[in-house]
Parts: sequence; structure tokens; C-alpha cells
Amino acid sequence: MEFVFDWQRGARTGVSEAVLCGAKSPAQIGFILGEARARRARLLLTRLEPAAFAGLDEDARAGLDYDPLSHTAVLGGPVPTVAGAVAVVAAGTSDLPVAREAARTLAFSGHEALLIADVGVAGLWRLMARIEEIRTCRVVIAVAGMEGALFSVLGGLVSAPVIAVPSSVGYGVAEGGRAALHSALASCAPGVVVVNIDNGFGAACAALKMLGARAAG
Amino acid sequence: MEFVFDWQRGARTGVSEAVLCGAKSPAQIGFILGEARARRARLLLTRLEPAAFAGLDEDARAGLDYDPLSHTAVLGGPVPTVAGAVAVVAAGTSDLPVAREAARTLAFSGHEALLIADVGVAGLWRLMARIEEIRTCRVVIAVAGMEGALFSVLGGLVSAPVIAVPSSVGYGVAEGGRAALHSALASCAPGVVVVNIDNGFGAACAALKMLGARAAG
Amino acid sequence: MEFVFDWQRGARTGVSEAVLCGAKSPAQIGFILGEARARRARLLLTRLEPAAFAGLDEDARAGLDYDPLSHTAVLGGPVPTVAGAVAVVAAGTSDLPVAREAARTLAFSGHEALLIADVGVAGLWRLMARIEEIRTCRVVIAVAGMEGALFSVLGGLVSAPVIAVPSSVGYGVAEGGRAALHSALASCAPGVVVVNIDNGFGAACAALKMLGARAAG
Amino acid sequence: MEFVFDWQRGARTGVSEAVLCGAKSPAQIGFILGEARARRARLLLTRLEPAAFAGLDEDARAGLDYDPLSHTAVLGGPVPTVAGAVAVVAAGTSDLPVAREAARTLAFSGHEALLIADVGVAGLWRLMARIEEIRTCRVVIAVAGMEGALFSVLGGLVSAPVIAVPSSVGYGVAEGGRAALHSALASCAPGVVVVNIDNGFGAACAALKMLGARAAG
Amino acid sequence: MEFVFDWQRGARTGVSEAVLCGAKSPAQIGFILGEARARRARLLLTRLEPAAFAGLDEDARAGLDYDPLSHTAVLGGPVPTVAGAVAVVAAGTSDLPVAREAARTLAFSGHEALLIADVGVAGLWRLMARIEEIRTCRVVIAVAGMEGALFSVLGGLVSAPVIAVPSSVGYGVAEGGRAALHSALASCAPGVVVVNIDNGFGAACAALKMLGARAAG
Amino acid sequence: MEFVFDWQRGARTGVSEAVLCGAKSPAQIGFILGEARARRARLLLTRLEPAAFAGLDEDARAGLDYDPLSHTAVLGGPVPTVAGAVAVVAAGTSDLPVAREAARTLAFSGHEALLIADVGVAGLWRLMARIEEIRTCRVVIAVAGMEGALFSVLGGLVSAPVIAVPSSVGYGVAEGGRAALHSALASCAPGVVVVNIDNGFGAACAALKMLGARAAG
Amino acid sequence: MEFVFDWQRGARTGVSEAVLCGAKSPAQIGFILGEARARRARLLLTRLEPAAFAGLDEDARAGLDYDPLSHTAVLGGPVPTVAGAVAVVAAGTSDLPVAREAARTLAFSGHEALLIADVGVAGLWRLMARIEEIRTCRVVIAVAGMEGALFSVLGGLVSAPVIAVPSSVGYGVAEGGRAALHSALASCAPGVVVVNIDNGFGAACAALKMLGARAAG
Amino acid sequence: MEFVFDWQRGARTGVSEAVLCGAKSPAQIGFILGEARARRARLLLTRLEPAAFAGLDEDARAGLDYDPLSHTAVLGGPVPTVAGAVAVVAAGTSDLPVAREAARTLAFSGHEALLIADVGVAGLWRLMARIEEIRTCRVVIAVAGMEGALFSVLGGLVSAPVIAVPSSVGYGVAEGGRAALHSALASCAPGVVVVNIDNGFGAACAALKMLGARAAG
Repeated sequence: MEFVFDWQRGARTGVSEAVLCGAKSPAQIGFILGEARARRARLLLTRLEPAAFAGLDEDARAGLDYDPLSHTAVLGGPVPTVAGAVAVVAAGTSDLPVAREAARTLAFSGHEALLIADVGVAGLWRLMARIEEIRTCRVVIAVAGMEGALFSVLGGLVSAPVIAVPSSVGYGVAEGGRAALHSALASCAPGVVVVNIDNGFGAACAALKMLGARAAG
Repeated sequence: MEFVFDWQRGARTGVSEAVLCGAKSPAQIGFILGEARARRARLLLTRLEPAAFAGLDEDARAGLDYDPLSHTAVLGGPVPTVAGAVAVVAAGTSDLPVAREAARTLAFSGHEALLIADVGVAGLWRLMARIEEIRTCRVVIAVAGMEGALFSVLGGLVSAPVIAVPSSVGYGVAEGGRAALHSALASCAPGVVVVNIDNGFGAACAALKMLGARAAG
Repeated sequence: MEFVFDWQRGARTGVSEAVLCGAKSPAQIGFILGEARARRARLLLTRLEPAAFAGLDEDARAGLDYDPLSHTAVLGGPVPTVAGAVAVVAAGTSDLPVAREAARTLAFSGHEALLIADVGVAGLWRLMARIEEIRTCRVVIAVAGMEGALFSVLGGLVSAPVIAVPSSVGYGVAEGGRAALHSALASCAPGVVVVNIDNGFGAACAALKMLGARAAG
Repeated sequence: MEFVFDWQRGARTGVSEAVLCGAKSPAQIGFILGEARARRARLLLTRLEPAAFAGLDEDARAGLDYDPLSHTAVLGGPVPTVAGAVAVVAAGTSDLPVAREAARTLAFSGHEALLIADVGVAGLWRLMARIEEIRTCRVVIAVAGMEGALFSVLGGLVSAPVIAVPSSVGYGVAEGGRAALHSALASCAPGVVVVNIDNGFGAACAALKMLGARAAG
Repeated sequence: MEFVFDWQRGARTGVSEAVLCGAKSPAQIGFILGEARARRARLLLTRLEPAAFAGLDEDARAGLDYDPLSHTAVLGGPVPTVAGAVAVVAAGTSDLPVAREAARTLAFSGHEALLIADVGVAGLWRLMARIEEIRTCRVVIAVAGMEGALFSVLGGLVSAPVIAVPSSVGYGVAEGGRAALHSALASCAPGVVVVNIDNGFGAACAALKMLGARAAG
Repeated sequence: MEFVFDWQRGARTGVSEAVLCGAKSPAQIGFILGEARARRARLLLTRLEPAAFAGLDEDARAGLDYDPLSHTAVLGGPVPTVAGAVAVVAAGTSDLPVAREAARTLAFSGHEALLIADVGVAGLWRLMARIEEIRTCRVVIAVAGMEGALFSVLGGLVSAPVIAVPSSVGYGVAEGGRAALHSALASCAPGVVVVNIDNGFGAACAALKMLGARAAG
Repeated sequence: MEFVFDWQRGARTGVSEAVLCGAKSPAQIGFILGEARARRARLLLTRLEPAAFAGLDEDARAGLDYDPLSHTAVLGGPVPTVAGAVAVVAAGTSDLPVAREAARTLAFSGHEALLIADVGVAGLWRLMARIEEIRTCRVVIAVAGMEGALFSVLGGLVSAPVIAVPSSVGYGVAEGGRAALHSALASCAPGVVVVNIDNGFGAACAALKMLGARAAG
Repeated sequence: MEFVFDWQRGARTGVSEAVLCGAKSPAQIGFILGEARARRARLLLTRLEPAAFAGLDEDARAGLDYDPLSHTAVLGGPVPTVAGAVAVVAAGTSDLPVAREAARTLAFSGHEALLIADVGVAGLWRLMARIEEIRTCRVVIAVAGMEGALFSVLGGLVSAPVIAVPSSVGYGVAEGGRAALHSALASCAPGVVVVNIDNGFGAACAALKMLGARAAG
């Protein structure tokens, strides 16, 4: 196997390497899980489709905590988490898979996120009903597809950094997430930062780095 | 001259043909103005840059009411207007040229618009302070560049039809207005309709048609 | 379930929230249907593929009026409709699913549309044969894919507002509907307004707003 | 000078090489004109901006028939022309520079085109008033910007081949001519063929080749 | 059924309407075939996938001449053809389905095309070996995917009009046919005209119009 | 004047509203400066071109600290700054205007950035020579155009959050900054977050939010 | 069969024609294999999916050396290879199929490549650990998807020519390989050359040309 | 000054760093020239527009060999060159600035290129007349705009590596060089490699590396 896993990444950059399973074969995934078990290392797997999870052999699946909605799996059991530092806010229920990928990544690293869904701006009262709760968090991750108006509205209402995750939810000009991505980047609310489309994992990594930055302050 | 002006368009479609001056020479513009004067017809000119206006000869300019901000001119004097039917709402002061093109087109046809500017969603309180006023209008024209979040927020707050005019204001991914256009089209607020980038004139024409539709109800 | 349905949207904006089923699981759709039944609310479901409809459990399907061509379903039975206010004009037979999504949305809110199909401009006589009928309507919804020339031709022939719905019908440069969308936005016929590709539902919502009608939901 | 002019192209392909002046220096253009004079060859120059024409030295300009609207120049004097074979139809007056580039190219090769302008489909009666005249021609060149609906309407009305020339006239999504180009390519009227944006010269070359094909029939 | 077939198109425009089957249901296709049989009209069907052909009921399939490579079917039997007027030249064997769609359309209207394949310019000798044969034809249809260099090379070698059909064959930047389309449009060989990607039918219609032939339908 | 300045934005969101001067007239800019002076508020102006600065009247310019490289101006004098919290790293000298816009925004709010330039990855030793210094900072802003490889390399070397600012420096496929933007978004180094092209101001605002600092405005 | 295989390409251009199987039927592939066997020619087949390989009849498959990871097959048995001239460096394990297509093409022509994988720049130490080995090679082929930062880093570290192969690995803005392609083309490291997305075969051909080697075919 | 010039790049990568002047101020350029003089280093400057060259102060300009066509300047005098290793082939005279940037870069490093212009494929005989001369070279650089068909034709005729440089020459779909770029990348002639649009400098650097690779063989 030609893998050169970056086991030191957590120490060096503050976030551990995860296994992006999308383009990997069951044999390749099994090999990495075996290495991790040998090192007694915990491991996060992302973009592991239900069919791909089912395709792993039994040894590989043993002890994996798999979540079919977010396509994530965790090896090594849960760690104690603290709550209240990060809010994950999703515009619609269709954005939940991405939002949960973020929440699961945070939980893997010891943070239980406040997860709020279905607060799209077409019914602004839904967001307003939760805004004080969101304001108690130190970092906000916002997930939205279609036109992504949530990013700017949130960015104008909270003082925490807002990490926008455009989702690929939508059709027509919104198909694939470019409309939401450009909305996030062009946001009139300064201080909104953006990650790639559907990249809940990356948003959580950034949030963890920001909490580290602030903790060190 | 090869012009075949569509003098019957007003009767046929509810909105008169206007003269789009952008790609016309001073001689061409002067010729149409002459024809209109001969017919004692009123005429609206759009996209007439200050330099192009200055380049018209004196006869052509005589009696023209020119507005340098919106690049529009009116031949034939003002008509009595009624107020209160249409709101023109601009996200930022940079959107004013487009917003005024809409307002001037409405005035040409007898409607004085309620013009509200600088209510971008990064400071939501500004829009909320004016929302009751906007709700009294029967049609709402919204002008916004950058990420165009205003379209969805407005669309979720009023029962009148909302005509979105994406403006070309912005830089980076927002340059040229595509980001705002896609936001408008992908809006999560149903019932928002869209015209071409910077097309304040077209939005006003649509509003006039809608008022006709409703008036006939 | 994390749903926050916007039951007041009809009262607030003139059009009720519908359930966009594309990215929802059978459990999520069933949950909303249950809530609606508990409130004795009528409900419109869109983008419900035949396979997804079949995947709902029997309780959820009970009493649903499903239309496989337009992928729409209605809970709560028909309401009395009035005819003659809205024309839905489709360029080709391939545009019928989108056209019917519009017509079904209108019917849900009490309007029976005049539905006219297969009047593409390559055979202009077909449109001309129906134009007087179309002219009797107060709002016109036009659905066209490929090059979308129908939008401009119609826009120049009627005084009612024309809502253009580009459809994703086409291949090569027309694939996905961008060519038709840009034709609609760049139309030389002023007063044409546009919604997202394949968005028959949105066009109907806009038409309802233009009529000043209240949703029956 | 590194020029290798293709003097035999006319014999080989039916249309002579022309000098595309856009990216050439006055010295380069002067050199080719000198070569042509030495061979007593006639020569067509395209995309020669007024400033570039003024920048040629006097010897180079001598005997050039320059047309500032179409940016074309002819060396070698007019040839006798026959009329009636080709119609050049322009949607708006802004399309005239491109339409005239086509007409001048045809005249250079002995064909006087029937030039018709300002017949955009927003006022369909204007086209209908000229359609019988157009039907007498053996090839039709259509020039249109914005949404290019003229191509499909014309294609459905005449039996001659229609060569579509999208023009770069327009703003917003129509800027640069892509919307009109895609309309032409996706036309629902079969038999419409297309050349590059603003390429009146190429359309005329194609028309000349088609006349040859038919003449040979 | 909402069909309004344009049976007079052949007389009006020189090419008969064909049935584009891609987005039609078996019932819709069967209905049109029935109408044609009732009128004793010949009919060409395009983009009829093998599975769709198999899905037609027996009555509908009766007497249809189906070609699985080009996805075309003909109702009404062959007509006598003349050879030698049109060459159909395909760069690679992968372009054959599109090339045959053109050839079948020509045959439907009485022209037997000279079909030449696998003459891509990476091995120029292959084209040169056939060029004299191609030069005997009055119209040339060229089909090429990937980078579409064949269009310019051919355009510089023959005096007949060259109709370029970009094919969607290719991967990476060539996927979907845009690279070949832009090559055709930007060709340095004047007189090349272009149709939509994979549109062999449209190219044949254009060729027929160029020949001045009347469709036999 | 139609301005509704959001004077409370600093308190609400942690970063004060700045004046984006790009599309504003001298009169509009002068008006806001006057309002600020009346409130004795400090103010940051961005995208103020040298010609626009020169075009302000003398009263407006009085007391403005203008920096022609970054096109920023500050009203209200410097505030005491602390150093060491933020690094601003620019790949090339051409990225300095954007990098300085970030540094000036930080200074306006009390942070003196560590500014490091000309450390593009084509000569990796230049970055390695400064990496320990960069590692001492709590937030890193990286500015790069062309292919933006710096973002990923930096993201893999430091544990602080990395804010990527793609710059519009480049030609060909890099023109306008899209190549660098996509590199930043697709970075293989998790935890990199991105702002719009050339948006040094937004990056600084995000950094301030990450530090939990309050704007001094 | 209409094939005109270019058997002399190896002699003429230094690299033999290979059979790109993607759009070919089993019958077409079988026919070429038969021709090659008759000539006793060796043959390389690319983009032969496992299902397509399984679909070949037994005669066609006989003696084919098939590699399911790279989708390549070789007819004619191995040739002696020399090692050390070319390095093939892949950023991640997901890039291995493309990297192996390059390596198999090189092996077909007598070169055994040094294959190094999983050295993406997010963990720069992995590349640094292998860099001296890479520096011993005369040509370097680099394969990377996502943001393609590897191309610039490698280009700045070795004196051999670097051939960049962007891979289609990635999601969001990286989907399909355009982000990596643009990174390669815009690389700040001069001397990097680029081939089409996923074109491992083309990269190997270029490497062979650079080595001045003759294809063994 | 914040410059960190990479003086060791020549030794490390085989090609020296050049000064890309496009976005640098006269002061910045002057500073680097001063440093080079102090080290008695030779230096190549690219993208130095005539106006920028004229804007340098006299000391900076002293001893610079400036070429206004290619916008390049050389400090340090000519070096002896050898001829015959590299051909630079330009499709049209408009491609000469890019072709000369390549030739000047080669001359700076001791190679006198064979420069051939105006051999576009619309007149194939022009290329054929020079092909034997081109075949004597060990590396071929091809420069072409518009549709870039030259790349594939050349790639199929020579055994040397072909480096394609798409130029931004063209209009309509060819504007900016993307059509030529995609033609080069999608070339059906294997072994063609590509650099960024208008990047004659990069092509020359790649050629130098290839000569080194071969020389070392």
C-alpha cells in the first residue's frame, strides 16, 4: 500500500488528518483502519457512503461508530465533550447532512455543537427566535444552499466569526452550490469566511483552530 | 436612417418603446428625437451617458429633461403622477443609479415611486425600520448587488410581488452582477421575479404591467 | 424532527409554503404531512418523484392527489377554482411537466389556468392561432427550453405581465437551461420577468401575487 | 516582414483571404497593402478602427475605400455587383456595424445585399412587413444581439439557409454576445447555422460558398 | 394530447419537422406516429434511444426502420436517393453516431451522403488520401470532438461550404463538446458555419437548404 | 443624501462599518466624512483610488491619513496598537496592495500585523526562513494570486487559522483571481478559510472576530 | 469497419497510436485487436473500463495484460525496461489510477517509472523525504487533484521538466479537475507544462518525446 | 523594499528567476535592477510595457536591451548562442509578440531559436513548406490564438516535444485565449504539452529544461 498517513498533523496544525473515503477502495480504507488500530489511534472517516460502509469487511467495521446521514464514521470511541462553544446553523432540513458532518467532526475533537436547523430567511422569524442562543457561542458555522442569504443575515447579527458552508442543495442556477458559494464570498457582512461547497469537515477544522487561537489569547 | 420605431408598442403591450442609447450615435438619437417631436410624442431615453448627452446637438437637447445619475432623459415634459403604488428599494447607495432608472421610468408613465436606499441586510434594523411603509405598496422593486441577500429577505416579508434587479456593483466573484443575479433566481422566497442585471427600466415596465393586471382584477 | 414549518407564510406573503421534496427522506415528508393533517391544513408538495411517492408509507399517501407528470401532490382536496385569469403557455410538449407544476400550484390556490402547449416559434402560426385567447388573461406564464425565443415573441404581443420559466429541455449549449434563461433575461421585449430554471411553482406564486390573490392554504 | 499571405485562397476555397487588422501595426498593414499593389490584387481589410486607419501613412491610404461604420476598407475599386441573392437582416440599429461588414464583404465579391434593419421580434409586425422581400433571396444572413430570438423566428419563416451572426450588443447576461450565440445554436428552427460573435465577414464568406454550392447544382 | 405538429414546415422552410424523441413518453411518440400514418406522411424520428424504441408498443414500431447507432427511425420506407452532393466527414470512429444521424436525415430527403470516418488531423495523411473525393461534393458536413482541429483544416482545403458539428466526444476540458464548439466558431478558415453540439440532424437540414432541395416529407 | 450608516455595527458584530468608496461620488464620500466628524467617530475608507482621493474637496481631505498603495484612508488619527497577534503573508510583491489593506484595517482596530512578502512557493526556502516567526501569531492572513499554492503549504505548517485572500494578480487562466480562489477553497490543508478576491479588508475583519477583539471605531 | 489506424504514428511522431476505448463498442475494439494480431503489432489500450474488458469476446481478450486500476491493457507482452529516467509523483492515493496510466504507458515503451504516491503538500515532510530520489530522474510527471499545489512546489525543487496532470479528484469547486488544471497553468514555478485532466497517457507520451525515445510499438 | 529575489533558482531548477514587471512600480523594478548590478548578475525582465520602460529612471534603463514588440528587456548584454535546437512557430503575425517573448528568453540562456510565422492551418501549404526545417529541431514551441488548430497538426507531424502556447488573439468565443487553450489541452495528437495563455516565457523555460533533460541522457 502506498499510503503515507500524516499522523503528526494534529500536533503540527491543530487538526488531525481524517480519511476522505470518497475515492478510496474498501481495501485501502481497511488498511488505514488497521494501521490506526495498531497505533491505538482514534480516527475520523468522512464521505463514507452507506454502500461503501457496507462494503468494508467485518474486521474493518468493528467498533466503528457510523452515521448514515452525515456519511461519517469514528474509530476509537467517544471522548468527553464540552458544549456551548460552536453553533452549527442550517438553513433547511436538506442542509442537515453537511451540518452534521461539521457537528460530528467537532464532537470527535471534544466539542458538542449547538445544532439549529430550518431557519432560512424566507421566514425570518424562525432565525430571530433562536438568535440569542446563537449569540452565546464563540464560533458560528452556517450551512445554506440555494441563494445562501442566511450567511449575510447571520453575519450582520452576531459578533462571533461566521464560517459559511455553501451546500449543493438547489436546482437551476443553484445546482451544485455555486450560487450559494458566491453569495457567501460576496457577502455584504464583513468578517464572514468561507469553505468549499459541502465541506462541513473543513468548517469544523477551522472552528477548532479559531477556538485554539482564542483560547491562547 | 434605418429606424423602424415601434410607436404602437404602448397600445399593444402596455409599455411604450424607449430609446436604448448605449450603442447609438448622436445622429441616430437626434433622428429619433426629431421623429418624436414631429409626432408630438413623449419619449424616454435610457443609458444616455453624460458625454453622449453633451454630444447631442442643441436642437436634439432642447426640452430634454436629463438626469445624470440614472442616465435617463425625458422628452415631452412631466405628466401628473400618483404616488404609493410602487416601492423601489436599493440595498446600497451604489445601487441608486439603477434604482433611479426604475423610478424615472415609472414617473414617465405616471407613477411616483417610494424610493428607499441603503437598507442592506448586514444591518437588518435599517430595513425593518421601513418595512411597514414598503408593505403599503402594491409592487416592490428591489435593487441589490454583491450577494443580493436583500431579495430573499424582502420576499419573505411582503405580500406584494417583488421584482429583483441585480446590480453590477461588486468585485471579485460579484463583479458584473452574476452573483446577485443567481441569488435572485435561486431565492428561497417564492414569488420573487427577476430581470437582467442593471435593468431598472425593465423592472419598471414589469411593474406597470402588473399594476395593469391588478387594476383589471 | 428539526422542521420549523412556516405555517404563517400565506398570511404574511400571499403564498403558502410548499414542501420541496427533492432532498427530503420519506420519514421527513411523512412527518410534515402528519403535522398538516393534525392542523387540518391543506398542503402542496413539489418535486416528488414517482419513486419517492411510492416510497411513502400508506398513512402518508392517504388522500394525496398525486400527478406523476408534474411531480406534485396535494393534501386536502380540491378547492373551487375560477378560470381565465392566468395563461400557461408551453413551447413544446417536453415543457409540459414544468407547465403543469405551475398549473397545479395555481389550482391549489383557486385558479384554473388556460394551458396551451406546442406553440414554439419555429412554426409561428401555431402561436398566432391562440394569441387572442391568451390576450384575455391577466397574467401569462411562458415555459420554454432550448433557445427560449417564445419569451420575447410573447412579450411583444400581449399587455399582461409575462413570467418566463426557462426549462432544462435541450442538449449541447442548451443543456440544463442556461441558454433559455439568458434569452429570457436579455429579452428585447420589456416587461418580461424571469424565475429559476424549471421553477413552475415559483412562477405560479408570482402570478398569484400579481393577481393580489391570497393563497387558500 | 514575416507575412506569408495566402494569395491562392480564393481559388482553393472560394473566398479570398482578407486582412484582419485588429492586432496588426500600421507598418504591418502598410506592408501587405504594398504587396497587393505590386501584384495588382484587390484586397479587403476588416476590423480597421478609424484611429488605425488614420494612423496609416498616406501611401498606404491612397485609393482605399474606407467605411467607418463597419471598419472595413477595400483596395482596388468596386466591381460590378448583382443584387437579390443575399438578404442581410439586422434586429436593431446597434447591429448595423456587423451587418454592414457582411454587406461590404459581399459587395467586394460582386453581390449587392438586400439590407434590412430594426426588425426585432418585440415588434413582430416590422419583420412581417418585409418577409416576402426576404423570401426572394437565396441566402439570409441574420444579425442580432441581446437574446437573439430573431434567428429562430426567421428560420421558421424562410426556406433559404439562415446564417446567424450573434452580435455583442447587450448588457448583463447578454454582454459580449454569448446569450445570442447560444440562442442561435440552440434554435428550435432546424437549418440555422452560426458563425462567431460579430463575425459579419465570416457570414458573408459562408454565403458566397453557399451560392457557389447552389449555382453548381 | 397537446401536440400541434407542424406538417407544413417542409413546404414553408424546405425541411420537414422531425420528432425529437429525447424527452417524450412512449405514448406521445405513438400518438404522433398514428397521426402520421393517418395522413400517410413519411416521418423522421431522432434521439430515440434503443430502450425507448423497445418501449414503444407493437403498432407504433410496425414499419419503422430503426438504426441503433444513430438513434434514428424512419416511417414510410426509403425514397430513391441521389449520391454525390454531400460529404459527411467524421474525425474519429466515436463521432460516427452523430455523422450517421446526419447521413440518415439526408437519406430521408433523397440524398445519399459520402461518409468518411477516422480522418483526424493527428494523422493528416488519412485526410489527404480522401481529399479529392471530398472536393467533388457541393456541401461538406464535418463532425469532430476533442479539439475539433478538423474543421479548420477542411475549411482551408475545399471550396464547398463546411458545416461543423462539434461532438461531445472527449474528457477533461473537452467533455460535453464545448472545446470543439469553440474551435469551430473561432476557426481561422473563413466560411465554416456551425450547428449545436451533436446536432447531426440540424447539419443535414442546413445542407438540404443549401442545396435548395425540398424535403420529401 | 440617502445614507443610513450603520454606526452600531461595531458594537453588534465586532467590526465597524467601513466606507467602500469604489462606486461613490466625491459628494457622497464627503457627506459621510462630515457625519463622522460631527459624531467625533473614527472612520476607515477602503478602495479610495488616488484620483478619487484627489477629487475630494479640502474639507473632506483634512486630517485624513491616506495610503496610496492600499487605497485606504483613516479619519481620526492612529490608536495605540499591540503587535504579534496577526501575520499577513504575501506570496509576491504584486500582492502587497491587498496585504496592506488588511494590515491597515488591523491597525485601525489596534493590531500591528507582522507583514511578510515575497515568499511564494516556487522558492520554498523563502517561506521556510520565516516560518517560525509566523508560527508565533494567533491568526495568519495569506495573500496570493496566480495559482495560490501558498495557501495549502502554509495551512499544513501552522496551527493558527489561515485566512486565504486570493488576489487578482495574474494573466491567462489566473486573470481576475478565480484560479487562486478555487485553489484556496479546494485546499488539501483542512482549516483554511477564504474571503472574496482582493478582499484584504474582509480578511482583517475576520481576524479581528477570531481574536475576539472589539473594533476601536 | 471504418477504422483507419495510424500504424506509422510511432515512426513519425515518436509515440505510437493507442486505442482510446471509452466510446468504442466491443466489436470495434475486437476489430482493432484482430488487425494488430494480424500485423504482429504490439498495442496499448486506454480507458478500458472493467465492464468493457469483460464485454470483449474471448478471442479479443486472449493474451491481453489488463490492469483494472488504470483501465489499461497491453497486447503483445512486456518489453525489457530501463529504470530511472522518469518519476511519476501522485499527491494522493486517489490519484493513483491516473498515475498508473502514465506508468503503464511508459512501461509499454520500455521505461520503468519511479512511482511515488501520497506526498500532498498539506504534509510537506512527505515530499521532502523523497525529493532527492525524484531529483535523480530526467523527467517528472506530477499527478494531483483538488487545488494542485504540488505542481508549483515540485516545479520549484527540481531541474527536470515537470509535466502536470490535473486529476478530476475533488468536490465543490474542485469537481472535474478545473481547479487543479488552472493551478497547473498559472503555476508560479516556470517550466511546468500541462496536459488535459486525467490524461496520464498524454503525459507519458510527452515524457517519451522529451527523452527522445522511440516508441517500441 | 520587501523583495526576496530567488537568485539561486537557476542552479536549483535549471531556469533563472525573471522579473515579471506587469504589476510592479518603477521604483520596485529599479530596486531589483540595482541589486542585480551590484551582484553583476544578468537579468531578464518580462511584460515591461513601453510606457513602463519609459517610466524607469535613467540609471535603471542604462544598459538595458529593450524589445518593444515582446515587452522584454535584458540586463547584462548578450551571451553567445547556439542555433538549431528550438523552433518557435507562430500561426499568425498577431502571435509574434508572444513568440518573440519565447525567443528572447531562449536567447538570454544561449539558444537562438528558429522563428517561423504566419503558417496557420487555413493555408496548410505554408506549414508544409517549412516542415522539414522544423523537424530538425529538438523542441518545438507553437504559438496560436483563435481555434489553435496548429497545435494538433504540428503534433502529428514531428517527433520532437511540442509546447503549445495559446495566445489571447481572437474575438467572440476566442477572446482571451480560452478556445485556443482548450484546443491545446484536448489535442488529439498525444505528447502536446501546454502552458498558460500568452506565456512565451514559460514555454521557453520548459524548452530549456527539456534540452537539459535530453542532454543529460
